[in-house]
Order: sequence, then structure tokens, then C-alpha cells
Amino acid sequence: MKIVIVGLGLIGGSIAKALRQNTSHQVLGMDQNQDSLLDACSCGAIHGKAGSEDLKSADLVYLCVYPEAALEFAANFGPLLKENCILTDTCGIKSALCAGIEALRGTGKYVFVPGHPMAGKERSGFSASDPSIFVGASYIIAESGGPAWAAEQVETLALAMGFGKIVRTTPQRHDQMIAFTSQVPHVLACAYVLSPQCQAHQGFSAGSYRDVSRVADINDALWTRLFLDNQEALVKELDELVGNLSHFRNLISAGKTAELQSLLHQAGESKRRNG
Amino acid sequence: MKIVIVGLGLIGGSIAKALRQNTSHQVLGMDQNQDSLLDACSCGAIHGKAGSEDLKSADLVYLCVYPEAALEFAANFGPLLKENCILTDTCGIKSALCAGIEALRGTGKYVFVPGHPMAGKERSGFSASDPSIFVGASYIIAESGGPAWAAEQVETLALAMGFGKIVRTTPQRHDQMIAFTSQVPHVLACAYVLSPQCQAHQGFSAGSYRDVSRVADINDALWTRLFLDNQEALVKELDELVGNLSHFRNLISAGKTAELQSLLHQAGESKRRNG
Repeated sequence: MKIVIVGLGLIGGSIAKALRQNTSHQVLGMDQNQDSLLDACSCGAIHGKAGSEDLKSADLVYLCVYPEAALEFAANFGPLLKENCILTDTCGIKSALCAGIEALRGTGKYVFVPGHPMAGKERSGFSASDPSIFVGASYIIAESGGPAWAAEQVETLALAMGFGKIVRTTPQRHDQMIAFTSQVPHVLACAYVLSPQCQAHQGFSAGSYRDVSRVADINDALWTRLFLDNQEALVKELDELVGNLSHFRNLISAGKTAELQSLLHQAGESKRRNG
Repeated sequence: MKIVIVGLGLIGGSIAKALRQNTSHQVLGMDQNQDSLLDACSCGAIHGKAGSEDLKSADLVYLCVYPEAALEFAANFGPLLKENCILTDTCGIKSALCAGIEALRGTGKYVFVPGHPMAGKERSGFSASDPSIFVGASYIIAESGGPAWAAEQVETLALAMGFGKIVRTTPQRHDQMIAFTSQVPHVLACAYVLSPQCQAHQGFSAGSYRDVSRVADINDALWTRLFLDNQEALVKELDELVGNLSHFRNLISAGKTAELQSLLHQAGESKRRNG
């Protein structure tokens, strides 16, 4: 297959490297940043740069860019893609993106498979890319009515890249779950480090501080978009969390020993049961 | 020196092992659990069990038990300790404990040095003890008017155990900082896993879920006590966090793109500046 990766940042760069290491497909890259393209070429992460002729003959295109840029790509280049070319993305939100891509389809004959590799790290850019972040992680495919063979192709490639688990779900369910598992922790980390005490934590902190604050060094432009594109589900989960925190706060403030211990016990049970 | 460790759980067991590995002091243990005592003896973590005669001649006693049990020890055995015996603890709260120990001093001639080794892990008990958790961590000494030589002695032992940094502070300041660095993350982890979505997180979660929920498998009896003994500082920090979370929630709900991105940027700056 001829595979084009659009956006050679942390995720796109890692996908390129993983495909080159584990498959014999032709892997080409596109990026507005010429340095990323050069770095990717020189380390062998891609066979070369993709031009518009390559897009016309591509079998599969990975969109590894912000949601807005993914929509822009669909608008500008979607009509170039050949019939049954698989267009797949790696964005952290799905419902708004799927609706946007469908709205922009026009004369495009491609098949869209919404994907979300559940892997990342605090740093971004091609220099941070590393295919080992995928090993054992889960790859979500948010089925939105496309043909089964296309989703299966994306799945096969994900397994070849080292992903340990494929999760099939709907765009709506994806966004609900991601609000809880990923977006809330990012909002939380940011809310946490805004405490005035944060300035003086050194010497008083250990693993708990480190873990909660880890993702606070956030890519603010990207996450603003992701949060707003998942407004409803995220606000619901934030309300759930604030409600639970306030419940703890009130039990602590009122000195309700038995109720507090019972609620902590319930939380411990949830963690032990759900992992 | 003759050193007695009261409570051979995760922390007491780790202190015993660290002292045996790195010093030539005599290390004796006390524990209500006979199995912990036997395990500690048989693996060489202690030279033997401490009886009341040993308490009378001890040079230093580590209280590695819950705050209530530490106060009980001071009430029952404080008067046995010889003049200038150093009594030090490892409890996660300081103001209430220091006041309690002073109130119970009676005829006790010992010197009290409030201490807090900033290390731990999710599991508890002697079987989880491991002196490597101390390596490079910080050891807080909450000075409360005792003589300088006693705090220095505790400091020397902490450095011998492998701690990387000694922090001198007051009991009040300790409790304020711990509310932020340790207690809030524990409340948070528990509040987080109480979301109904938690049951279905598998396949949708990665590092962010794991990090925020890590300490939710909590020792509910211990932390109920620690939270209530630090009520004022903890409620203040929880209010700070809930305020910041609600601010994010409202910006997301109202779709305030620029303000949201600016607040995320501010959080990122705080994390980069403060580590």
C-alpha cells in the first residue's frame, strides 16, 4: 500500500516509524514544517515527501493534525483521493469531527474511518515521536457507517504497529468516555497547578503531586479545541467530578468521620474493581 | 545508638531496612502484629523485638503508626523513655499531632522531633516495605521548639537512609503544603473513580486515567484520620481546586475560546516554572 501521513508530530511521527519498522508499505509524509519532513526523511521514518500526485494514488491517509486542520485537509484534498482510499484520523474527539468531514465530503470518493490511538506523552513534535508509546496501548475505531473492510484495514495496521487492543465504538460513546478518561484529567491537572501553593511544592511533594500535575504543561491551542469540540460530554463529567469533590469537602468540613470513611471505602472498591 | 521502630508497616519496615543497610546502629522493632515482627526478624530488617526495658534505654524511637496510635504510645510509654531520648514520628499531619504529644507529655523527659518522610506507595504492610522508596526523596522536619541537636540527629539518620533533601519547616506550614501536595490528590483520585464512567474505562484509558486514579485504592481508615486532622488547610485547598475547576467548566460551557486558551496557558506556565 501507499500510505500518506499528514502531520509528522508526536503521533504522526510515531505512526510513520512504527509502519516503517513493522510493515513493508510505502510511507510518505506531509508537513507544513520543512524541518520535520527533513528529519523524518533523514532518519528513515518516511520514504519521502508526498505531493498531490501521491495523494491521488494513496491507498490510505492518516490525518495526524489538529481537528481543524483535519477538516481543512478534507475540504482541500478530499476530492483528490481515489475511490476507496481510506482516510483515517487520530484526533482526540470524534462526533464533531465525523459530522464535519461528512459535511465537507462533496464529490470525495474516499472512505472515512475515525480512529484514536490511545497513546501520547507530555512532549510534542517529531523529535518526541517514538513508536514504543503504542506498544500494548488501545486503538479506538469509532464506527460511523463506513464499510467493514476499511475499518479492518485500519485495525490490521494498528496491530502491526504494536497496539495491544482494538476498541470498536461509536463517535458519541468515544467522546463520552474520553471526556472522563482523558479530558477531565487534563482540566484537572491545569486547575490543580493554579493553586498558589504550587509555587512552593518542592520539598513537600512526591508521587501524588507529580502524577496529578503531569499533563499540566499542556498544548493550550490543541486542548482548547478538543475541550470545546466535546463541550457537552466534558461539562457533564466536570459536573460529576465537582459534585463528588464537594461531597468529600463537606464531609471533611463537617467532621463526618463514618460517612467520610465509607465514601473513601466506596472509592477504593471502585478502583480495585475497575483497575 | 539503640533505635526502636514502633510499627513495622510500609514506612517502619522501610526505615528498619534502610537503617540496617546503611548504619551500624542497633535496630529493634515493636508491632502488634506478630507476623510482621517475625518477618522483620527473619529477613534481618531488625535485630530483634523491643520490650519495655529496651524502650527505657533507647536513644531514638521512630513512631511509624497512625496518628492516634502515636498519641497512645506517647501517653503509655512516653514516661518510660530516658532523658533526651529522641521521639520522632512519620505521620502525614503535624499540627494536631504536635499539640497532642505536648498535651500528653506529663513527666516525659524525651525530646520530640516531628518528622515526615515524603515517600510511600499504594500498597501497605511490612511485605511492601522497601528502602529504595526513600532514595532521593525529601524528609520534612517540622520544628516545634525542640533542641537543635535532636533535629540534627534525625536529619543525619534520614540522609544515611538515602533521602536526598531535608526540609525544615513549621507544623502549620507542613500541614498547609501537604494539604495541597498529598491530601488533595488523594481526595481527587477518590472523587474521580466515583464517576459512573469509571466502570467502562478499559480500552478508553491510558496514562492520564492511570495517574489520576493511582492512589484511589486508599487505606480508608488512615486517610479519614489524616483528612480530619488537617480539616482547615484541606478544606481551603479543596475550595481552591473546586473554584479553579468550576472556572474551567464555565469557560468550556460558554464556549469562551480565548479565555479558555489563556487559562490553560497560565496553567502550563505554572507547571513549567514550578516543576
